[in-house]
Amino acid sequence: MLKLDAHPTGRHFLQIPGPSPVPDRILRAMSLPTIDHRGPEFGVLGRKVISGIREIFQTRHPVVIYPASGTGAWEAALANTLSPGDHVLMFETGHFASLWAKMATRLGLSTEFLSWQGTDEVLPNAPGWRRGVQADQIAQRLREDREHRIKAVCVVHNETSTGVTSDIAAVRGAIDEAKHPALLMVDSISGLASAEFRHDEWGVDVTVSGSQKGLMLPPGISFNALSPRALDASKTAKLPRAFWAWDEIVEMNATGYWPYTPNTNLLYGLSEALDMIQAEGLPKVFARHQRWAAGVRAAVNAWGLPIQCADPAVYSPVLTGVILPDGMDADAVRKLIYERFDLSLGTGLGKLKGRMFRIGHLGDSNDLTLLATVAGCEMGLKLAGIKLQSSGIQAAMDHFSQHPAPALTA
Amino acid sequence: MLKLDAHPTGRHFLQIPGPSPVPDRILRAMSLPTIDHRGPEFGVLGRKVISGIREIFQTRHPVVIYPASGTGAWEAALANTLSPGDHVLMFETGHFASLWAKMATRLGLSTEFLSWQGTDEVLPNAPGWRRGVQADQIAQRLREDREHRIKAVCVVHNETSTGVTSDIAAVRGAIDEAKHPALLMVDSISGLASAEFRHDEWGVDVTVSGSQKGLMLPPGISFNALSPRALDASKTAKLPRAFWAWDEIVEMNATGYWPYTPNTNLLYGLSEALDMIQAEGLPKVFARHQRWAAGVRAAVNAWGLPIQCADPAVYSPVLTGVILPDGMDADAVRKLIYERFDLSLGTGLGKLKGRMFRIGHLGDSNDLTLLATVAGCEMGLKLAGIKLQSSGIQAAMDHFSQHPAPALTA
Amino acid sequence: MLKLDAHPTGRHFLQIPGPSPVPDRILRAMSLPTIDHRGPEFGVLGRKVISGIREIFQTRHPVVIYPASGTGAWEAALANTLSPGDHVLMFETGHFASLWAKMATRLGLSTEFLSWQGTDEVLPNAPGWRRGVQADQIAQRLREDREHRIKAVCVVHNETSTGVTSDIAAVRGAIDEAKHPALLMVDSISGLASAEFRHDEWGVDVTVSGSQKGLMLPPGISFNALSPRALDASKTAKLPRAFWAWDEIVEMNATGYWPYTPNTNLLYGLSEALDMIQAEGLPKVFARHQRWAAGVRAAVNAWGLPIQCADPAVYSPVLTGVILPDGMDADAVRKLIYERFDLSLGTGLGKLKGRMFRIGHLGDSNDLTLLATVAGCEMGLKLAGIKLQSSGIQAAMDHFSQHPAPALTA
Amino acid sequence: MLKLDAHPTGRHFLQIPGPSPVPDRILRAMSLPTIDHRGPEFGVLGRKVISGIREIFQTRHPVVIYPASGTGAWEAALANTLSPGDHVLMFETGHFASLWAKMATRLGLSTEFLSWQGTDEVLPNAPGWRRGVQADQIAQRLREDREHRIKAVCVVHNETSTGVTSDIAAVRGAIDEAKHPALLMVDSISGLASAEFRHDEWGVDVTVSGSQKGLMLPPGISFNALSPRALDASKTAKLPRAFWAWDEIVEMNATGYWPYTPNTNLLYGLSEALDMIQAEGLPKVFARHQRWAAGVRAAVNAWGLPIQCADPAVYSPVLTGVILPDGMDADAVRKLIYERFDLSLGTGLGKLKGRMFRIGHLGDSNDLTLLATVAGCEMGLKLAGIKLQSSGIQAAMDHFSQHPAPALTA
Repeated sequence: MLKLDAHPTGRHFLQIPGPSPVPDRILRAMSLPTIDHRGPEFGVLGRKVISGIREIFQTRHPVVIYPASGTGAWEAALANTLSPGDHVLMFETGHFASLWAKMATRLGLSTEFLSWQGTDEVLPNAPGWRRGVQADQIAQRLREDREHRIKAVCVVHNETSTGVTSDIAAVRGAIDEAKHPALLMVDSISGLASAEFRHDEWGVDVTVSGSQKGLMLPPGISFNALSPRALDASKTAKLPRAFWAWDEIVEMNATGYWPYTPNTNLLYGLSEALDMIQAEGLPKVFARHQRWAAGVRAAVNAWGLPIQCADPAVYSPVLTGVILPDGMDADAVRKLIYERFDLSLGTGLGKLKGRMFRIGHLGDSNDLTLLATVAGCEMGLKLAGIKLQSSGIQAAMDHFSQHPAPALTA
Repeated sequence: MLKLDAHPTGRHFLQIPGPSPVPDRILRAMSLPTIDHRGPEFGVLGRKVISGIREIFQTRHPVVIYPASGTGAWEAALANTLSPGDHVLMFETGHFASLWAKMATRLGLSTEFLSWQGTDEVLPNAPGWRRGVQADQIAQRLREDREHRIKAVCVVHNETSTGVTSDIAAVRGAIDEAKHPALLMVDSISGLASAEFRHDEWGVDVTVSGSQKGLMLPPGISFNALSPRALDASKTAKLPRAFWAWDEIVEMNATGYWPYTPNTNLLYGLSEALDMIQAEGLPKVFARHQRWAAGVRAAVNAWGLPIQCADPAVYSPVLTGVILPDGMDADAVRKLIYERFDLSLGTGLGKLKGRMFRIGHLGDSNDLTLLATVAGCEMGLKLAGIKLQSSGIQAAMDHFSQHPAPALTA
Repeated sequence: MLKLDAHPTGRHFLQIPGPSPVPDRILRAMSLPTIDHRGPEFGVLGRKVISGIREIFQTRHPVVIYPASGTGAWEAALANTLSPGDHVLMFETGHFASLWAKMATRLGLSTEFLSWQGTDEVLPNAPGWRRGVQADQIAQRLREDREHRIKAVCVVHNETSTGVTSDIAAVRGAIDEAKHPALLMVDSISGLASAEFRHDEWGVDVTVSGSQKGLMLPPGISFNALSPRALDASKTAKLPRAFWAWDEIVEMNATGYWPYTPNTNLLYGLSEALDMIQAEGLPKVFARHQRWAAGVRAAVNAWGLPIQCADPAVYSPVLTGVILPDGMDADAVRKLIYERFDLSLGTGLGKLKGRMFRIGHLGDSNDLTLLATVAGCEMGLKLAGIKLQSSGIQAAMDHFSQHPAPALTA
Repeated sequence: MLKLDAHPTGRHFLQIPGPSPVPDRILRAMSLPTIDHRGPEFGVLGRKVISGIREIFQTRHPVVIYPASGTGAWEAALANTLSPGDHVLMFETGHFASLWAKMATRLGLSTEFLSWQGTDEVLPNAPGWRRGVQADQIAQRLREDREHRIKAVCVVHNETSTGVTSDIAAVRGAIDEAKHPALLMVDSISGLASAEFRHDEWGVDVTVSGSQKGLMLPPGISFNALSPRALDASKTAKLPRAFWAWDEIVEMNATGYWPYTPNTNLLYGLSEALDMIQAEGLPKVFARHQRWAAGVRAAVNAWGLPIQCADPAVYSPVLTGVILPDGMDADAVRKLIYERFDLSLGTGLGKLKGRMFRIGHLGDSNDLTLLATVAGCEMGLKLAGIKLQSSGIQAAMDHFSQHPAPALTA
């Protein structure tokens, strides 16, 4: 057995914004014996997860489940709906928006990447990485596109690299206002099942998501939630696709099966995750993450360090980016915290490498898990020589004391 | 928890040719907590599996590990090496060869599908599905292709739909003899780690494989083993690709990491599988499957039913196809066996639907597992009213008694 | 991790008459995190198993659950009801009856050990080990005991060393007929939840049982089912006792807790086992074991080897003893079968060491498991040079084919 | 499956002084399939744990492993060495010393229970429950016993009910000084593998221990470590015993087996625990608990609440008792903390019910686990209306920051 248990004692605190800590229930479910993916028992499992996942996306339309990690679902969204050379409008909210844009280009699309035009004193090199999608910029660009050359607008719902959650309904509004036929494609990989998300109500055409965030599964499953317009688009789209092709999957899913071998044991985990989320109820799931996020932000504010998200209206309930004083190496602080306190934090990605770290507040956590996380951060920041204004742990404890979660005992 | 344990008692016998029965050791390994895929512990895991998997393919060159099931690795092989409209030569060995050819066409390639030209009394509608790849047909076709329009020869090593294992070295010989520059791409999804396979020595350019057969993992991981020529071809190939693109993966794999989120918990399983295979030794692994296959064939011969593979030189060590008397519905027999004896057998695929069933003899099995399987088949065949010539279970017991496996105790 | 998985491949066949093969469901349940044995969640668990286990014993009276293996529950039965020097009547049905008698003597009781008085050609040195308790011998002895010196009659319900199940109702009848006040104490360690057992209806005062047989748990839990008379007796009994004392346990059990630390994780397993047995239904559980036993006996009869139990009326549904031809070393045959076929069989115990082996047909098994077991035995017997009259595997297959179990799919 | 996972999210914090949090490694080991306790594989396991457990007790003499929880091992120590009516000297260090004395009386021994003779303002009704064993009182009593009526001195090493660790070497010194032949019997149920303990060097005759504390296993296994003098005493001791009798166990243990069915799956856990402790090294294990204890005490001191142990020389490294202000119901505070913060604390036992709670700092924990625990206590105390002098969490964080543990990465 691999020596992943090599730490002297205790359980590692995995407080990165995904993969999130996986509940033991789900790990146990995944250890059920693999079954025949063409047998009758599989059909029962298949129909359950195919139907159940729609509730999480808040959609009545098909959700395609891929036996592949999330990056593949990005490709699937583009390849099923677009043709070589098609023009797509994307918006730079952070590292993952940038990677999706890079992928679109690589697949032969013409990619236009809008950015926020303001300036930012704290992060002068990445001002847009502190804000959400600017729906008005998109609206203006679409109005200008009288020939409807833009075939899709692609935005990230919850930017895992920054801790900013964009207003998707506003983007839909921008498209509608411009009376533009572009498809709306949204990456909610780290938002789904943690931050409110309404595929149908918000008029999203394709939502891309993955297993290893709010669903609390290990990585290895990803999703495309579809709209009827997206399905229509797929009938004429010309980008080559086979593994990602919706047509055969959607057709076979009707009976609970897949056209190729699905990821059986992760589907066991998905089934268990759906049970857990359904038992708690989606609104409570969202409220829980909001409450956790507020507690963690109380700590960061007490420290006197800037929260990366500069707009309180779009604070992410899933993670909080913490910007370090100029000259401090955030990765050195992370390493110190990892080695001294057995706590993993998210690294600064892309333009922000070394400038900040990210605290994940999702997955199999509770108040004490997050207080332990705050304590680990606070000790590490001090040991690294960073002056903190006041006690973050005290602020977080005050928050959690004053804002009780729903009672534990049902 | 999903009621997959709903059978009254006992463990289900999963004797399909994959997903194979997963050893408890591997299921336990997969239940280790998910870790940060960018942290130091992951690097140790990554380097171990990236290096260890090469030994299984018998190659010194890179093996790309995808967090996706096997069908994706087919697409990866084609998309990384070929350009739209390229001509590929494939050979009809069965259902999976047909599906791969269909995929190639769908991706925009020009697909030429050779078939065996003989006749077969038992399966007149699918004579080629009882034989392996005919290297001489390929040699002749390549000789005729003086302009080298054929860019790749694609064949299946172990046809999971038929129980025929083709001679890959002979195909390489045919290409060499014709002095043809076509790449040789081989699907060994169900052959790897069960049937002898030598990527380097046999001059394969891309080998496609998956996790859920000889590696004894659940589905969800797949592979492309590369040759230097394949890597060269990928630099100029024009089919669009992103998720499947070798370049970034091979580059980042050098440090033990992936450019996107890998399938962490299945990699735990892969690590465990590599330990198990290494401890037994590949030659013993291959011998074990050959011995099992001979025992099962002894039973089928005793029954007097035709083995699907008509050429003893290419019997598969992984599975055996059993052809039923004309007029019998093989799927009805399978259903009876499933319901009465808690035993899953492989269905007849494509052209052979209802004509035959497949017995898998791979994965977490032993002599008694296979004798139980033979007993279940024999009882089911009789209950279905099929006359059998003699006792298959007796023949299999005689075989296993007279051919001892290596001693259990090391 | 301990290398218990060191066998090359496949799952070991544990066909001894206990510990029985443990279902994965139960092993998974046992891996839930240990909780506070004084906390509210524990009370829920405690009340469930304390109440549920009564249904298995078919009693309305208290069942004491010990965090100890079965031998302890023997001691508990004696120590709670008897005083030093008390006279107890026991009956030699085999090795475990002998051990219980030895324990009674060791604890300072006066032990009288009745044996069957006939002769037996096959096992001349242990004729009584082929038959059940003789109620008429007990009746006669009790009639003679006019002064009621005998304080308890102790018998074994299902003799694990022989494969004989005694008629407990007949023993009760013998006591009643003699109008004798002796307590009736019964060891049903290997009978409970496999062979019909009715604590209340049969008028048993103390039933002793354990976890590792019909309940399909690992060893580590044992039971005393009580009658009101037994509880009365415990108020005046003078053998010293503390850990085994019923009084404090029965009192605290009323709330779902124990006076000392219970065996928490095995109680998780017990809870799961109760769910499984309740879902199947006790009558179906008993019928299942009877059906399996008949199939195994069909094989032994076909081989022409004597079944140890000489009286078909008391064949055990749990295990079958197989007597080897004179001069054959049964343990050498067992070793051969273990090493060649990864199959564990029960050894001959006490007087029968080397003369016989025992096939367990209980726990997490199904028809194919038992056919594999029969196949392993038959191959091993032949390899050891023993002449068999006819095919046992064929006889067992015929039995299971002709006597269908309830359908797998509910 | 039992709904022990019913909490909305996150892992329960089990910070009671045992059962301690069980590492996942051990839970996984316990889920290995049960094997034949008379087969060759079991012997390997048996020999490993029988030999390995001696290192933990720091003894060269036999350690008996019982398939029963710790209370049984108390009885075993007494029953194997003493005869009815024997006089034993015990010392009131707290609830568990009292229970052991009560058991001795129940078993028919003549029990003399010494108590500390001072007064205590904080706990006037239980002054001795704030101090360790007073070796000088024992010495004096033994000197007075010129006829050597006292057969054994029984003391508790680490009082789980109080958080006081007694000086066992001093007790040995008292016996030696008095030249008294009494056996020294020590309960180190909650001390073993957390607090320094030296069976041989300290001249202990019988050490009693259990699995669910420093060994980090679930409850269900207990121990008697023996001395040659204890073994001698057992040859003439007259208390009846069978299950607990050392003679047969010690004899059969020589080959790695037990005279009755052992607790197989918990032995898997023990094997894993021994591996973990050996890898860390006993001195580091002890230092780790001392460091944790100091951090927790720093918090209690900062709160201004009395630590139950009034003598810093004998602070327990395993748990800390926290005494609440007069008039506060400690169990109500514990309930509040349990319901609001998913944290279990130990209840006040016996004389101290409602006056205090106990924080366990043992088992599968790390710095952040304990900081989370301190945070949970601090929030709960405040919510219950208790005035705290200063920030306990800050004091604990300062302690852990200033006293680094050994580096995580080996």
